[in-house]
Amino acid sequence: MIDRIRVIGIGMGDPQLLTGQAVEALRSVDVFLVADKGERAADLVRARQAVCDFAIPAGRRYRLLEVADPRRGPDAERDATAYGSGVRDWHAARVDAYAEVLVGLGPDETTAGFLVWGDPAFYDSTLRVVDALAERIPFSHDVIPGISAPQLLAARHRVPLNRIGAPVHVTTGRRLVDEYHPGLGDVVVMLDGHLACRGLVDRHPDLELLWGAYLGTPDELLLRGRLADVVDEVSTVRAAARERHGWVMDTYLLRPPAS
Amino acid sequence: MIDRIRVIGIGMGDPQLLTGQAVEALRSVDVFLVADKGERAADLVRARQAVCDFAIPAGRRYRLLEVADPRRGPDAERDATAYGSGVRDWHAARVDAYAEVLVGLGPDETTAGFLVWGDPAFYDSTLRVVDALAERIPFSHDVIPGISAPQLLAARHRVPLNRIGAPVHVTTGRRLVDEYHPGLGDVVVMLDGHLACRGLVDRHPDLELLWGAYLGTPDELLLRGRLADVVDEVSTVRAAARERHGWVMDTYLLRPPAS
Ligand SMILES: C[S@@+](CC[C@H](N)C(=O)[O-])C[C@H]1O[C@@H](n2cnc3c(N)ncnc32)[C@H](O)[C@@H]1O
Ligand SMILES: C[S@@+](CC[C@H](N)C(=O)[O-])C[C@H]1O[C@@H](n2cnc3c(N)ncnc32)[C@H](O)[C@@H]1O
Repeated sequence: MIDRIRVIGIGMGDPQLLTGQAVEALRSVDVFLVADKGERAADLVRARQAVCDFAIPAGRRYRLLEVADPRRGPDAERDATAYGSGVRDWHAARVDAYAEVLVGLGPDETTAGFLVWGDPAFYDSTLRVVDALAERIPFSHDVIPGISAPQLLAARHRVPLNRIGAPVHVTTGRRLVDEYHPGLGDVVVMLDGHLACRGLVDRHPDLELLWGAYLGTPDELLLRGRLADVVDEVSTVRAAARERHGWVMDTYLLRPPAS
Repeated sequence: MIDRIRVIGIGMGDPQLLTGQAVEALRSVDVFLVADKGERAADLVRARQAVCDFAIPAGRRYRLLEVADPRRGPDAERDATAYGSGVRDWHAARVDAYAEVLVGLGPDETTAGFLVWGDPAFYDSTLRVVDALAERIPFSHDVIPGISAPQLLAARHRVPLNRIGAPVHVTTGRRLVDEYHPGLGDVVVMLDGHLACRGLVDRHPDLELLWGAYLGTPDELLLRGRLADVVDEVSTVRAAARERHGWVMDTYLLRPPAS
Protein backbone atom coordinates (compact mmCIF):
# COMPACT_ATOMS: atom_id res chain seq x y z
CA MET A 1 0.00 0.00 0.00
CA ILE A 2 1.37 3.32 -1.11
CA ASP A 3 2.32 5.86 1.54
CA ARG A 4 5.18 7.79 -0.02
CA ILE A 5 6.10 9.06 -3.48
CA ARG A 6 9.59 10.24 -4.37
CA VAL A 7 10.16 12.31 -7.49
CA ILE A 8 13.79 11.75 -8.35
CA GLY A 9 15.84 13.84 -10.76
CA ILE A 10 18.34 11.42 -12.30
CA GLY A 11 20.41 13.83 -14.35
CA MET A 12 21.18 13.22 -17.98
CA GLY A 13 21.78 9.47 -18.27
CA ASP A 14 25.34 9.27 -16.96
CA PRO A 15 25.03 7.63 -13.51
CA GLN A 16 27.95 9.80 -12.36
CA LEU A 17 25.59 12.77 -12.56
CA LEU A 18 23.38 11.33 -9.81
CA THR A 19 23.58 13.13 -6.48
CA GLY A 20 24.09 11.16 -3.26
CA GLN A 21 20.54 12.12 -2.32
CA ALA A 22 19.20 10.64 -5.56
CA VAL A 23 21.13 7.40 -4.97
CA GLU A 24 19.69 7.17 -1.47
CA ALA A 25 16.20 7.84 -2.81
CA LEU A 26 16.54 5.23 -5.57
CA ARG A 27 17.44 2.66 -2.94
CA SER A 28 14.31 3.41 -0.92
CA VAL A 29 11.83 2.82 -3.75
CA ASP A 30 9.74 -0.35 -3.99
CA VAL A 31 8.05 0.41 -7.32
CA PHE A 32 9.27 2.71 -10.06
CA LEU A 33 6.54 4.11 -12.26
CA VAL A 34 7.76 4.63 -15.79
CA ALA A 35 5.75 6.05 -18.65
CA ASP A 36 5.76 3.61 -21.53
CA LYS A 37 6.23 5.89 -24.52
CA GLY A 38 6.68 3.10 -27.06
CA GLU A 39 9.88 1.88 -28.61
CA ARG A 40 10.77 5.37 -29.87
CA ALA A 41 12.27 5.98 -26.45
CA ALA A 42 13.99 2.63 -26.00
CA ASP A 43 17.32 4.39 -25.43
CA LEU A 44 15.77 6.32 -22.56
CA VAL A 45 14.37 3.17 -20.99
CA ARG A 46 17.83 1.62 -21.18
CA ALA A 47 19.35 4.73 -19.59
CA ARG A 48 16.82 4.51 -16.74
CA GLN A 49 17.64 0.87 -16.20
CA ALA A 50 21.36 1.70 -16.13
CA VAL A 51 20.75 4.31 -13.46
CA CYS A 52 18.87 1.78 -11.30
CA ASP A 53 21.53 -0.88 -11.82
CA PHE A 54 24.21 1.60 -10.81
CA ALA A 55 22.50 2.95 -7.72
CA ILE A 56 20.62 -0.01 -6.27
CA PRO A 57 22.53 -2.88 -4.63
CA ALA A 58 21.92 -6.33 -6.11
CA GLY A 59 20.12 -7.60 -3.00
CA ARG A 60 17.44 -4.92 -2.94
CA ARG A 61 14.07 -5.93 -4.44
CA TYR A 62 12.12 -3.48 -6.56
CA ARG A 63 9.76 -3.44 -9.52
CA LEU A 64 9.87 -1.29 -12.63
CA LEU A 65 6.26 -0.77 -13.68
CA GLU A 66 5.51 0.57 -17.13
CA VAL A 67 2.37 2.68 -17.21
CA ALA A 68 0.80 3.08 -20.64
CA ASP A 69 1.19 6.69 -21.73
CA PRO A 70 -2.03 8.10 -23.18
CA ARG A 71 -1.36 9.65 -26.59
CA ARG A 72 -1.70 13.36 -27.02
CA GLY A 73 -4.50 14.42 -29.36
CA PRO A 74 -3.41 15.47 -32.86
CA ASP A 75 -4.61 19.04 -32.20
CA ALA A 76 -2.36 19.40 -29.22
CA GLU A 77 0.65 20.22 -31.29
CA ARG A 78 -1.07 22.71 -33.58
CA ASP A 79 -0.43 25.96 -31.80
CA ALA A 80 0.67 27.37 -28.50
CA THR A 81 -2.85 27.66 -27.08
CA ALA A 82 -3.91 24.18 -28.07
CA TYR A 83 -0.56 23.02 -26.76
CA GLY A 84 -1.49 24.12 -23.24
CA SER A 85 -4.98 22.55 -23.20
CA GLY A 86 -3.91 19.43 -25.14
CA VAL A 87 -1.20 18.80 -22.57
CA ARG A 88 -3.74 19.27 -19.79
CA ASP A 89 -6.13 16.60 -21.16
CA TRP A 90 -3.23 14.26 -21.58
CA HIS A 91 -2.26 14.87 -17.95
CA ALA A 92 -5.75 13.99 -16.76
CA ALA A 93 -5.56 10.66 -18.60
CA ARG A 94 -2.12 9.99 -17.14
CA VAL A 95 -3.33 10.73 -13.62
CA ASP A 96 -6.08 8.12 -14.08
CA ALA A 97 -3.55 5.55 -15.27
CA TYR A 98 -1.16 6.17 -12.36
CA ALA A 99 -3.91 6.23 -9.75
CA GLU A 100 -5.06 2.81 -10.92
CA VAL A 101 -1.55 1.41 -10.63
CA LEU A 102 -0.97 2.96 -7.19
CA VAL A 103 -4.12 1.57 -5.59
CA GLY A 104 -3.16 -1.88 -6.94
CA LEU A 105 0.26 -2.05 -5.25
CA GLY A 106 1.16 -4.99 -3.02
CA PRO A 107 0.94 -4.74 0.80
CA ASP A 108 4.73 -4.35 1.15
CA GLU A 109 5.03 -1.81 -1.62
CA THR A 110 4.87 1.45 0.31
CA THR A 111 7.27 3.71 -1.59
CA ALA A 112 6.74 4.59 -5.24
CA GLY A 113 9.27 6.52 -7.27
CA PHE A 114 9.20 8.56 -10.45
CA LEU A 115 12.48 8.75 -12.33
CA VAL A 116 12.68 12.14 -13.94
CA TRP A 117 15.12 12.92 -16.71
CA GLY A 118 17.31 15.85 -15.64
CA ASP A 119 15.61 17.96 -12.97
CA PRO A 120 11.88 17.75 -12.19
CA ALA A 121 11.91 21.58 -12.14
CA PHE A 122 12.41 21.98 -15.90
CA TYR A 123 9.74 21.11 -18.47
CA ASP A 124 8.54 17.97 -16.82
CA SER A 125 4.97 17.11 -15.91
CA THR A 126 5.63 14.64 -13.08
CA LEU A 127 5.04 17.14 -10.27
CA ARG A 128 1.70 18.15 -11.76
CA VAL A 129 0.71 14.49 -11.97
CA VAL A 130 1.77 13.88 -8.37
CA ASP A 131 -0.18 16.93 -7.15
CA ALA A 132 -3.27 15.61 -8.92
CA LEU A 133 -2.73 12.13 -7.45
CA ALA A 134 -2.43 13.66 -3.98
CA GLU A 135 -5.98 14.95 -4.32
CA ARG A 136 -7.24 11.38 -4.64
CA ILE A 137 -4.91 9.15 -2.63
CA PRO A 138 -3.17 9.96 0.65
CA PHE A 139 0.66 9.85 0.60
CA SER A 140 3.60 12.08 1.47
CA HIS A 141 6.03 13.10 -1.24
CA ASP A 142 9.41 14.70 -1.77
CA VAL A 143 11.43 15.97 -4.71
CA ILE A 144 15.12 15.32 -5.38
CA PRO A 145 16.75 17.78 -7.78
CA GLY A 146 18.96 16.54 -10.60
CA ILE A 147 21.42 17.97 -13.09
CA SER A 148 19.42 19.42 -16.00
CA ALA A 149 20.18 19.74 -19.70
CA PRO A 150 20.96 23.50 -19.53
CA GLN A 151 23.49 22.90 -16.77
CA LEU A 152 25.24 20.12 -18.61
CA LEU A 153 25.28 22.23 -21.77
CA ALA A 154 27.00 25.03 -19.86
CA ALA A 155 29.46 22.66 -18.19
CA ARG A 156 30.48 21.01 -21.44
CA HIS A 157 30.99 24.35 -23.17
CA ARG A 158 32.68 25.59 -19.99
CA VAL A 159 30.64 28.78 -19.83
CA PRO A 160 28.29 30.35 -17.31
CA LEU A 161 24.69 30.74 -18.45
CA ASN A 162 24.65 34.45 -17.58
CA ARG A 163 26.76 37.49 -18.32
CA ILE A 164 27.88 39.46 -15.26
CA GLY A 165 24.79 40.49 -13.30
CA ALA A 166 22.54 39.78 -16.32
CA PRO A 167 19.55 37.43 -16.59
CA VAL A 168 19.16 33.91 -17.98
CA HIS A 169 16.00 33.12 -19.88
CA VAL A 170 14.99 29.51 -20.45
CA THR A 171 12.37 28.97 -23.11
CA THR A 172 11.09 26.59 -25.80
CA GLY A 173 11.66 26.42 -29.55
CA ARG A 174 8.00 27.20 -30.01
CA ARG A 175 8.32 30.59 -28.34
CA LEU A 176 11.84 31.66 -29.16
CA VAL A 177 11.40 33.76 -32.29
CA ASP A 178 8.36 35.72 -31.05
CA GLU A 179 9.87 36.28 -27.65
CA TYR A 180 13.47 37.06 -28.37
CA HIS A 181 15.03 40.41 -27.62
CA PRO A 182 18.51 41.08 -26.25
CA GLY A 183 17.10 42.36 -22.94
CA LEU A 184 16.22 38.78 -22.00
CA GLY A 185 19.89 38.11 -21.37
CA ASP A 186 21.43 34.81 -22.37
CA VAL A 187 18.71 32.49 -23.65
CA VAL A 188 18.58 28.71 -23.23
CA VAL A 189 16.30 26.90 -25.68
CA MET A 190 14.80 23.48 -24.92
CA LEU A 191 12.08 21.38 -26.55
CA ASP A 192 13.03 22.63 -29.99
CA GLY A 193 12.35 20.06 -32.70
CA HIS A 194 13.22 22.40 -35.56
CA LEU A 195 16.15 24.60 -34.59
CA ALA A 196 13.97 27.67 -34.21
CA CYS A 197 17.06 29.86 -33.83
CA ARG A 198 17.28 29.85 -37.61
CA GLY A 199 14.44 32.37 -37.45
CA LEU A 200 16.74 34.82 -35.64
CA VAL A 201 19.57 34.75 -38.17
CA ASP A 202 18.31 37.78 -40.09
CA ARG A 203 17.64 40.00 -37.10
CA HIS A 204 20.49 38.80 -34.85
CA PRO A 205 23.23 37.19 -36.97
CA ASP A 206 25.93 37.97 -34.41
CA LEU A 207 24.42 36.00 -31.54
CA GLU A 208 26.69 33.24 -30.33
CA LEU A 209 25.14 29.77 -30.54
CA LEU A 210 26.35 27.07 -28.14
CA TRP A 211 24.64 23.82 -29.03
CA GLY A 212 24.67 20.36 -27.43
CA ALA A 213 22.90 17.07 -28.17
CA TYR A 214 22.80 13.72 -26.32
CA LEU A 215 24.47 15.52 -23.43
CA GLY A 216 25.71 13.16 -20.74
CA THR A 217 25.77 10.16 -23.08
CA PRO A 218 28.69 8.66 -25.02
CA ASP A 219 27.16 10.17 -28.20
CA GLU A 220 27.39 13.76 -26.97
CA LEU A 221 27.70 16.40 -29.70
CA LEU A 222 28.83 19.99 -29.17
CA LEU A 223 29.03 22.87 -31.63
CA ARG A 224 29.60 26.55 -31.12
CA GLY A 225 29.96 29.67 -33.22
CA ARG A 226 28.37 32.85 -34.57
CA LEU A 227 24.71 32.05 -35.20
CA ALA A 228 24.73 33.04 -38.88
CA ASP A 229 27.94 31.11 -39.50
CA VAL A 230 27.20 27.91 -37.63
CA VAL A 231 23.46 27.30 -37.92
CA ASP A 232 23.71 25.30 -41.16
CA GLU A 233 26.38 23.03 -39.73
CA VAL A 234 24.30 22.45 -36.59
CA SER A 235 21.31 21.66 -38.76
CA THR A 236 23.25 19.12 -40.81
CA VAL A 237 24.89 17.46 -37.81
CA ARG A 238 21.55 17.32 -36.03
CA ALA A 239 19.73 15.73 -38.97
CA ALA A 240 22.45 13.12 -39.45
CA ALA A 241 22.42 12.24 -35.75
CA ARG A 242 18.66 11.94 -35.71
CA GLU A 243 18.88 9.60 -38.69
CA ARG A 244 21.47 7.46 -36.91
CA HIS A 245 19.74 7.25 -33.50
CA GLY A 246 16.11 7.53 -34.50
CA TRP A 247 15.72 10.48 -32.09
CA VAL A 248 17.58 13.56 -30.96
CA MET A 249 17.51 15.63 -27.77
CA ASP A 250 19.30 18.92 -27.94
CA THR A 251 19.56 22.16 -26.01
CA TYR A 252 21.28 25.40 -26.89
CA LEU A 253 22.34 28.74 -25.52
CA LEU A 254 22.09 32.00 -27.48
CA ARG A 255 24.04 34.96 -26.23
CA PRO A 256 25.09 38.36 -27.46
CA PRO A 257 28.73 38.50 -28.54
CA ALA A 258 31.05 39.52 -25.69
CA SER A 259 31.50 43.29 -25.96
CA MET B 1 53.39 22.31 -11.48
CA ILE B 2 49.87 22.99 -12.59
CA ASP B 3 48.55 21.17 -15.63
CA ARG B 4 44.85 20.81 -14.94
CA ILE B 5 42.12 22.91 -13.35
CA ARG B 6 38.77 21.50 -12.32
CA VAL B 7 35.84 23.80 -11.61
CA ILE B 8 33.59 21.82 -9.34
CA GLY B 9 29.98 22.66 -8.53
CA ILE B 10 29.43 21.44 -4.97
CA GLY B 11 25.71 22.08 -4.62
CA MET B 12 24.29 23.93 -1.67
CA GLY B 13 26.30 22.77 1.34
CA ASP B 14 24.66 19.41 2.00
CA PRO B 15 27.24 16.79 0.91
CA GLN B 16 24.36 14.57 -0.22
CA LEU B 17 23.80 17.07 -3.05
CA LEU B 18 27.20 16.28 -4.56
CA THR B 19 27.09 14.27 -7.79
CA GLY B 20 29.29 11.21 -8.22
CA GLN B 21 31.27 13.19 -10.77
CA ALA B 22 31.91 15.96 -8.26
CA VAL B 23 33.07 13.44 -5.65
CA GLU B 24 35.46 11.89 -8.18
CA ALA B 25 36.74 15.35 -9.13
CA LEU B 26 37.23 16.39 -5.49
CA ARG B 27 39.38 13.28 -4.98
CA SER B 28 41.62 14.18 -7.90
CA VAL B 29 42.54 17.67 -6.70
CA ASP B 30 45.93 18.44 -5.14
CA VAL B 31 45.26 22.08 -4.26
CA PHE B 32 41.93 23.75 -3.71
CA LEU B 33 41.90 27.48 -4.34
CA VAL B 34 39.45 29.24 -2.09
CA ALA B 35 38.70 32.94 -2.08
CA ASP B 36 39.25 34.33 1.40
CA LYS B 37 36.30 36.68 1.82
CA GLY B 38 36.96 37.44 5.47
CA GLU B 39 35.17 36.03 8.47
CA ARG B 40 31.78 37.20 7.22
CA ALA B 41 31.66 33.97 5.24
CA ALA B 42 32.99 31.65 7.94
CA ASP B 43 29.91 29.45 7.62
CA LEU B 44 30.65 28.98 3.93
CA VAL B 45 34.26 28.04 4.62
CA ARG B 46 33.02 25.46 7.11
CA ALA B 47 30.56 24.10 4.55
CA ARG B 48 33.37 23.78 1.99
CA GLN B 49 35.50 21.92 4.50
CA ALA B 50 32.61 19.58 5.27
CA VAL B 51 32.23 18.80 1.57
CA CYS B 52 35.95 17.93 1.29
CA ASP B 53 35.84 15.83 4.47
CA PHE B 54 32.83 13.95 3.14
CA ALA B 55 34.16 13.28 -0.36
CA ILE B 56 37.89 12.80 0.11
CA PRO B 57 39.21 9.65 1.81
CA ALA B 58 41.39 10.22 4.89
CA GLY B 59 44.55 8.95 3.17
CA ARG B 60 44.47 11.38 0.27
CA ARG B 61 46.74 14.44 0.63
CA TYR B 62 45.55 17.84 -0.50
CA ARG B 63 45.94 21.49 0.40
CA LEU B 64 43.27 24.11 0.87
CA LEU B 65 44.83 27.41 -0.19
CA GLU B 66 43.13 30.65 0.70
CA VAL B 67 43.68 33.36 -1.87
CA ALA B 68 43.11 36.89 -0.63
CA ASP B 69 40.04 38.30 -2.32
CA PRO B 70 40.60 41.84 -3.63
CA ARG B 71 37.90 44.19 -2.38
CA ARG B 72 35.40 45.65 -4.81
CA GLY B 73 35.61 49.42 -5.21
CA PRO B 74 32.93 51.40 -3.37
CA ASP B 75 31.48 52.62 -6.70
CA ALA B 76 30.90 49.14 -7.92
CA GLU B 77 27.66 48.77 -6.06
CA ARG B 78 26.24 52.14 -7.06
CA ASP B 79 24.37 51.31 -10.20
CA ALA B 80 23.92 48.61 -12.78
CA THR B 81 26.51 50.02 -15.20
CA ALA B 82 29.18 50.57 -12.58
CA TYR B 83 28.28 47.12 -11.29
CA GLY B 84 29.45 45.57 -14.55
CA SER B 85 32.74 47.45 -14.77
CA GLY B 86 33.41 47.31 -11.02
CA VAL B 87 33.09 43.55 -11.12
CA ARG B 88 35.43 43.43 -14.10
CA ASP B 89 38.23 45.34 -12.30
CA TRP B 90 37.80 43.08 -9.34
CA HIS B 91 38.14 40.06 -11.62
CA ALA B 92 41.40 41.36 -13.04
CA ALA B 93 42.83 41.68 -9.53
CA ARG B 94 41.64 38.18 -8.68
CA VAL B 95 43.23 36.73 -11.80
CA ASP B 96 46.57 38.25 -10.72
CA ALA B 97 46.23 36.71 -7.27
CA TYR B 98 45.38 33.24 -8.59
CA ALA B 99 48.08 33.30 -11.27
CA GLU B 100 50.66 34.01 -8.60
CA VAL B 101 49.47 31.09 -6.51
CA LEU B 102 49.35 28.70 -9.47
CA VAL B 103 52.89 29.36 -10.65
CA GLY B 104 54.09 28.79 -7.09
CA LEU B 105 52.68 25.25 -6.73
CA GLY B 106 54.92 22.35 -5.75
CA PRO B 107 56.28 19.89 -8.33
CA ASP B 108 53.73 17.21 -7.39
CA GLU B 109 50.81 19.59 -7.35
CA THR B 110 49.43 19.18 -10.86
CA THR B 111 45.67 19.46 -10.36
CA ALA B 112 44.07 22.57 -8.92
CA GLY B 113 40.39 22.79 -8.06
CA PHE B 114 37.88 25.55 -7.54
CA LEU B 115 34.96 24.71 -5.29
CA VAL B 116 31.95 26.57 -6.58
CA TRP B 117 28.83 27.04 -4.52
CA GLY B 118 25.86 25.56 -6.39
CA ASP B 119 26.52 25.39 -10.13
CA PRO B 120 29.33 27.32 -11.85
CA ALA B 121 26.77 28.22 -14.54
CA PHE B 122 24.78 30.60 -12.32
CA TYR B 123 26.09 33.96 -11.12
CA ASP B 124 29.59 32.82 -10.40
CA SER B 125 32.78 34.37 -11.70
CA THR B 126 35.09 31.35 -11.49
CA LEU B 127 34.83 30.40 -15.17
CA ARG B 128 35.72 33.94 -16.20
CA VAL B 129 38.74 33.84 -13.91
CA VAL B 130 39.82 30.46 -15.28
CA ASP B 131 39.46 31.70 -18.89
CA ALA B 132 41.66 34.67 -18.04
CA LEU B 133 44.21 32.40 -16.33
CA ALA B 134 44.29 30.17 -19.42
CA GLU B 135 45.57 33.12 -21.43
CA ARG B 136 48.65 33.29 -19.23
CA ILE B 137 49.40 29.76 -18.03
CA PRO B 138 48.98 26.51 -19.96
CA PHE B 139 46.58 23.95 -18.43
CA SER B 140 43.53 21.92 -19.41
CA HIS B 141 40.27 22.43 -17.55
CA ASP B 142 36.84 20.94 -17.07
CA VAL B 143 33.60 21.96 -15.38
CA ILE B 144 31.44 19.77 -13.15
CA PRO B 145 27.85 20.98 -12.77
CA GLY B 146 26.21 21.13 -9.35
CA ILE B 147 22.76 21.57 -7.90
CA SER B 148 21.98 25.30 -7.87
CA ALA B 149 19.89 27.44 -5.52
CA PRO B 150 16.92 27.76 -7.95
CA GLN B 151 16.75 23.98 -8.28
CA LEU B 152 16.80 23.38 -4.57
CA LEU B 153 14.19 26.09 -4.08
CA ALA B 154 11.91 24.32 -6.57
CA ALA B 155 12.57 20.88 -5.04
CA ARG B 156 11.80 22.05 -1.51
CA HIS B 157 8.59 23.75 -2.56
CA ARG B 158 7.86 20.71 -4.75
CA VAL B 159 7.07 22.80 -7.82
CA PRO B 160 8.47 23.01 -11.35
CA LEU B 161 10.10 26.34 -12.26
CA ASN B 162 7.94 26.71 -15.38
CA ARG B 163 4.25 26.55 -16.25
CA ILE B 164 3.36 24.16 -19.11
CA GLY B 165 5.39 25.16 -22.16
CA ALA B 166 6.17 28.59 -20.66
CA PRO B 167 9.57 30.20 -19.97
CA VAL B 168 11.66 30.53 -16.81
CA HIS B 169 13.51 33.79 -16.28
CA VAL B 170 16.37 33.94 -13.78
CA THR B 171 17.41 37.42 -12.74
CA THR B 172 18.82 39.53 -9.92
CA GLY B 173 17.17 41.70 -7.29
CA ARG B 174 18.81 44.70 -8.92
CA ARG B 175 16.94 44.18 -12.19
CA LEU B 176 13.67 42.66 -11.10
CA VAL B 177 11.38 45.66 -10.80
CA ASP B 178 12.46 47.34 -14.06
CA GLU B 179 12.37 44.11 -15.98
CA TYR B 180 9.30 42.37 -14.72
CA HIS B 181 6.33 41.65 -16.93
CA PRO B 182 4.15 38.53 -16.95
CA GLY B 183 5.42 37.50 -20.41
CA LEU B 184 8.75 36.55 -18.82
CA GLY B 185 7.09 33.45 -17.37
CA ASP B 186 7.97 32.28 -13.89
CA VAL B 187 10.79 34.41 -12.50
CA VAL B 188 13.58 33.26 -10.18
CA VAL B 189 15.34 36.04 -8.27
CA MET B 190 18.87 35.64 -6.91
CA LEU B 191 21.41 38.07 -5.48
CA ASP B 192 18.69 40.14 -3.87
CA GLY B 193 19.83 41.85 -0.69
CA HIS B 194 16.66 43.83 -0.22
CA LEU B 195 13.67 41.73 -1.25
CA ALA B 196 13.13 43.73 -4.43
CA CYS B 197 9.82 41.94 -5.05
CA ARG B 198 8.29 44.41 -2.62
CA GLY B 199 8.46 46.85 -5.54
CA LEU B 200 6.02 44.67 -7.47
CA VAL B 201 3.31 44.50 -4.81
CA ASP B 202 1.36 47.47 -6.20
CA ARG B 203 1.42 46.38 -9.83
CA HIS B 204 1.22 42.60 -9.33
CA PRO B 205 -0.22 41.83 -5.89
CA ASP B 206 -1.52 38.43 -6.99
CA LEU B 207 1.83 36.95 -7.95
CA GLU B 208 2.69 33.88 -5.93
CA LEU B 209 5.95 34.19 -3.98
CA LEU B 210 7.89 31.01 -3.13
CA TRP B 211 10.84 31.96 -0.96
CA GLY B 212 13.74 29.96 0.47
CA ALA B 213 16.81 30.83 2.54
CA TYR B 214 19.81 28.76 3.70
CA LEU B 215 18.60 26.08 1.30
CA GLY B 216 20.40 22.78 1.74
CA THR B 217 21.52 23.61 5.29
CA PRO B 218 19.94 22.62 8.61
CA ASP B 219 18.72 26.23 8.94
CA GLU B 220 16.62 26.13 5.78
CA LEU B 221 13.62 28.49 5.75
CA LEU B 222 10.68 28.27 3.36
CA LEU B 223 7.69 30.57 2.93
CA ARG B 224 5.03 30.78 0.29
CA GLY B 225 1.93 32.80 -0.46
CA ARG B 226 0.31 35.60 -2.44
CA LEU B 227 2.95 38.31 -2.86
CA ALA B 228 0.89 41.10 -1.29
CA ASP B 229 -0.09 38.88 1.65
CA VAL B 230 3.24 37.27 2.45
CA VAL B 231 5.93 39.84 1.66
CA ASP B 232 5.90 41.40 5.12
CA GLU B 233 6.26 38.05 6.82
CA VAL B 234 9.15 37.11 4.52
CA SER B 235 10.79 40.43 5.27
CA THR B 236 10.49 39.90 9.04
CA VAL B 237 11.68 36.28 8.96
CA ARG B 238 14.57 37.25 6.70
CA ALA B 239 15.68 40.12 8.95
CA ALA B 240 15.54 37.96 12.06
CA ALA B 241 17.52 35.18 10.39
CA ARG B 242 20.16 37.60 9.17
CA GLU B 243 20.46 38.94 12.70
CA ARG B 244 20.90 35.43 14.09
CA HIS B 245 23.42 34.15 11.49
CA GLY B 246 25.18 37.36 10.55
CA TRP B 247 24.35 36.70 6.88
CA VAL B 248 21.52 35.45 4.74
CA MET B 249 21.37 33.82 1.29
CA ASP B 250 17.93 33.57 -0.22
CA THR B 251 16.31 32.88 -3.56
CA TYR B 252 12.71 33.14 -4.63
CA LEU B 253 10.29 32.33 -7.39
CA LEU B 254 7.53 34.67 -8.54
CA ARG B 255 4.76 33.26 -10.65
CA PRO B 256 1.33 34.27 -11.87
CA PRO B 257 -1.50 32.60 -9.94
CA ALA B 258 -2.63 29.32 -11.55
CA SER B 259 -5.57 30.16 -13.80
C1 LIG C 1 10.77 17.31 -21.55
S1 LIG C 1 12.21 18.27 -21.44
C2 LIG C 1 12.95 17.62 -19.99
C3 LIG C 1 14.05 18.48 -19.41
C4 LIG C 1 14.68 17.87 -18.18
N1 LIG C 1 13.73 17.76 -17.08
C5 LIG C 1 15.90 18.68 -17.74
O1 LIG C 1 16.01 18.97 -16.55
O2 LIG C 1 16.75 19.00 -18.57
C6 LIG C 1 13.17 17.61 -22.75
C7 LIG C 1 14.14 18.61 -23.33
O3 LIG C 1 15.31 18.64 -22.52
C8 LIG C 1 16.45 18.78 -23.32
N2 LIG C 1 17.28 17.58 -23.16
C9 LIG C 1 16.96 16.48 -22.46
N3 LIG C 1 17.95 15.58 -22.49
C10 LIG C 1 18.94 16.13 -23.24
C11 LIG C 1 20.23 15.71 -23.62
N4 LIG C 1 20.70 14.53 -23.25
N5 LIG C 1 20.98 16.54 -24.37
C12 LIG C 1 20.51 17.73 -24.75
N6 LIG C 1 19.30 18.18 -24.41
C13 LIG C 1 18.52 17.40 -23.65
C14 LIG C 1 15.98 18.95 -24.75
O4 LIG C 1 15.86 20.31 -25.03
C15 LIG C 1 14.64 18.28 -24.71
O5 LIG C 1 13.77 18.79 -25.71
C1 LIG D 1 26.86 34.47 -6.21
S1 LIG D 1 25.33 33.63 -6.43
C2 LIG D 1 25.84 31.99 -6.59
C3 LIG D 1 24.78 31.07 -7.12
C4 LIG D 1 25.24 29.62 -7.22
N1 LIG D 1 26.34 29.48 -8.17
C5 LIG D 1 24.10 28.70 -7.59
O1 LIG D 1 24.28 27.86 -8.49
O2 LIG D 1 23.04 28.80 -6.97
C6 LIG D 1 24.67 33.76 -4.79
C7 LIG D 1 23.16 33.76 -4.77
O3 LIG D 1 22.71 32.42 -4.84
C8 LIG D 1 21.57 32.24 -4.02
N2 LIG D 1 21.92 31.26 -2.98
C9 LIG D 1 23.13 30.72 -2.78
N3 LIG D 1 23.08 29.84 -1.76
C10 LIG D 1 21.81 29.84 -1.32
C11 LIG D 1 21.13 29.12 -0.29
N4 LIG D 1 21.77 28.23 0.48
N5 LIG D 1 19.81 29.36 -0.12
C12 LIG D 1 19.15 30.24 -0.90
N6 LIG D 1 19.76 30.93 -1.88
C13 LIG D 1 21.06 30.74 -2.09
C14 LIG D 1 21.24 33.60 -3.42
O4 LIG D 1 20.28 34.22 -4.26
C15 LIG D 1 22.56 34.30 -3.49
O5 LIG D 1 22.40 35.69 -3.57
